[in-house]
Amino acid sequence: MAGNHESSDTPNDPRGCGFRSRTTVEAMLALIDSTTRPVDAELISGNSALGRVLAESVISQVNIPSFDRAAMDGFALKAEETFGADLYTPAQFTLIGRSRPGTGYNGQVSAGQAVAIATGAPIPPGANCVVPVEFTEVKDTLLFVRSSVTPGRHVGKTGEDVWKGSPVMDQGRVLRPQEIGLLAGLGIQKIKVLKKPGIAVIATGDEIRSDNERDHDSQYKINNMNSPMLSALICRDGGEPIQIGPLADDPAILASTLHELSACNDIHGIMINGGSSAGPEDHAPGVIANLGRLLAHGVALRPASPTGFGLVGGKPVLLTPGNPVSCLCAYDFFGRLIVRKLAGLSSTSPYPVIRRKLAHKLSSSLGRVDYVRVQIINETNEIEVIATSGASILSGTTRATGFLIVPADLEGYPAETLVNVHCYDTFQMPSIELP
Amino acid sequence: MAGNHESSDTPNDPRGCGFRSRTTVEAMLALIDSTTRPVDAELISGNSALGRVLAESVISQVNIPSFDRAAMDGFALKAEETFGADLYTPAQFTLIGRSRPGTGYNGQVSAGQAVAIATGAPIPPGANCVVPVEFTEVKDTLLFVRSSVTPGRHVGKTGEDVWKGSPVMDQGRVLRPQEIGLLAGLGIQKIKVLKKPGIAVIATGDEIRSDNERDHDSQYKINNMNSPMLSALICRDGGEPIQIGPLADDPAILASTLHELSACNDIHGIMINGGSSAGPEDHAPGVIANLGRLLAHGVALRPASPTGFGLVGGKPVLLTPGNPVSCLCAYDFFGRLIVRKLAGLSSTSPYPVIRRKLAHKLSSSLGRVDYVRVQIINETNEIEVIATSGASILSGTTRATGFLIVPADLEGYPAETLVNVHCYDTFQMPSIELP
Repeated sequence: MAGNHESSDTPNDPRGCGFRSRTTVEAMLALIDSTTRPVDAELISGNSALGRVLAESVISQVNIPSFDRAAMDGFALKAEETFGADLYTPAQFTLIGRSRPGTGYNGQVSAGQAVAIATGAPIPPGANCVVPVEFTEVKDTLLFVRSSVTPGRHVGKTGEDVWKGSPVMDQGRVLRPQEIGLLAGLGIQKIKVLKKPGIAVIATGDEIRSDNERDHDSQYKINNMNSPMLSALICRDGGEPIQIGPLADDPAILASTLHELSACNDIHGIMINGGSSAGPEDHAPGVIANLGRLLAHGVALRPASPTGFGLVGGKPVLLTPGNPVSCLCAYDFFGRLIVRKLAGLSSTSPYPVIRRKLAHKLSSSLGRVDYVRVQIINETNEIEVIATSGASILSGTTRATGFLIVPADLEGYPAETLVNVHCYDTFQMPSIELP
Repeated sequence: MAGNHESSDTPNDPRGCGFRSRTTVEAMLALIDSTTRPVDAELISGNSALGRVLAESVISQVNIPSFDRAAMDGFALKAEETFGADLYTPAQFTLIGRSRPGTGYNGQVSAGQAVAIATGAPIPPGANCVVPVEFTEVKDTLLFVRSSVTPGRHVGKTGEDVWKGSPVMDQGRVLRPQEIGLLAGLGIQKIKVLKKPGIAVIATGDEIRSDNERDHDSQYKINNMNSPMLSALICRDGGEPIQIGPLADDPAILASTLHELSACNDIHGIMINGGSSAGPEDHAPGVIANLGRLLAHGVALRPASPTGFGLVGGKPVLLTPGNPVSCLCAYDFFGRLIVRKLAGLSSTSPYPVIRRKLAHKLSSSLGRVDYVRVQIINETNEIEVIATSGASILSGTTRATGFLIVPADLEGYPAETLVNVHCYDTFQMPSIELP
């Protein structure tokens, strides 16, 4: 894991050690924002484009529908011939056939004639409305219409959904189920979307057990939690993770790996986990500075101060701390922004926000942002800080409702303060409230 | 598409035609809720379990960490020997070696001795604390400690994250990135989760163009929008769609398809699109009644009144209208509940809710729930109803911010009413607000 020069559980420790100065959260976000660009486009099947980002605007080449069609079951005829008809004085027509969905009626509707028609079937030439079944009566081949109907009534007009030549979806649109449906309606089978950014997740640290090591071979090793967690986060945000490592704590190995990845076409961003602090074993910052540019190192954010950001071969590289809660925090603030900017997605948070009262006073240090895991107290619906001291306690985040953010210029909040809770459960939304 | 006996654009049409009576939305939801059960479990890789539902609770078989380890870079020694030390009167130790992450120090720390230690490395036997680098000074093999340190300080204790034998995650938990990380930390490679429910999406209707038909072969056919849209919706809600059809408007074909699907182990639910109304060409309700039980047909919901629900071979079957907006509405209310109940997920809506003022009066009919597509007016931040008359206009939902729901017992809302808007963009959330 290498050095940790910020004690995660001792707010009174001297700070600033390890890092000469710390970048503010805002400055770090601005750096990422200004240096990270969306990836290239690719052509994929419309059927598999859910959640993808349109790389070009879509102009319709067709009308939807492509013909005038019945919007109701009934009878197609000339509307003008029903004028004056009512319950007591029906208009009379001769039934000459049937228009079926998919095939239609093979002929013309002339004065005094009507064609039975089903919803979705084409309006036969000569007719200009559909009289619904419930306003009619049929006797053999005679149809009695007991209502006046206006031209165009119950007709789905050609192009009423989409006009040929009209813009349908703008570039940058995230494709939702209704867009997937509409693309199919337009007959578009392949669509140009931004690639899913490939994100290399490099685990470093001599203490990380590799996949083929067994517990008894490696008494003092730990299982790699951060690579699977980061990979899941990257998936959630529209990226494609590629897990690499664990690498030994050796700057030469990290440098050659990083060099190779930065030249790889399928890799658009890199996250290095561990070795991100300012101790003698923290090689990652120096390696980035040697290979490319280290733009920030050390952030005024607890518990993720050992976070860094730079560019290698023009690709964004995020250094994330080895402590798993710190790693999650660094991702939530910065990793997410990198992945979503690469993917062409907005930088909005996936975490729904709810407002709750703090059960107890919350203390925080001036000059840094605090990422505080909290849970809802069932009895009172207030929230309390989860009593975990450390950045190493990942299980706390599995018990947490979510987190709250204490700004750098506050020393905390008094009890009973109404605060925003960012819920880890992305579907923790109020359900559709029913009438 | 078959019959449509509710005009979607004419609120003044006689209603009740087609359906003798209509099930309320609440009754329909209750029916689905009481007849739909979660699917079976399967064993999958923890790495690919993001978003899946735990089928059994997880009890830890290990401690995390599995050994006492350093939480800081510094020196491991006996804390008692620092008592009384301060800036001017340091305690003195002899450096006897180094504890590295992954391997440790091969020996015992005795009185007057200290071992250099890196974050994550095991605390050597005999030592009980870590003194951070910044409180120390090294001269050759001598270490001066200028602070008093308590036993246990900066030591990550065995089991401090997870105790061996403790419950870690409950059955039913939806696995988020932090749970994926923690499972890896526990060394759990395979995990028992609920299967993703397989949902057959059957398109029916002679007017639906099949994949191998070209436009010029089928002048009066339309492209299938609903199957791709429903499939995307099912994916979003944790199901696995299987597209079937389009089938011709023939009850025998539908019956044999349905019979086959209901006997298939990989199919847990069925959605039939089209032919769901009460006209002569609407075969689906009758087929379900023949093969199983038709529990509801016709719902007091606009524009999805031609919706039905039943069971075939014990499996839930939803009849959805052929008009694409009606289809989306039926899914949003009922399909989603079926998929999520099968998947073992909560029935909460994926759509974030925002509160906005209505720019204009909104009229609605008593006795039915209205699903109204709306958009935000940029200038005023108020919302307006999208001026589309029909249930057939899918493009309206691609332009909409979302929808609002007018309860059955209201005739609408006056202008300026503050209403809940269910946003179609699932990530339309307020971003993490920064300090």
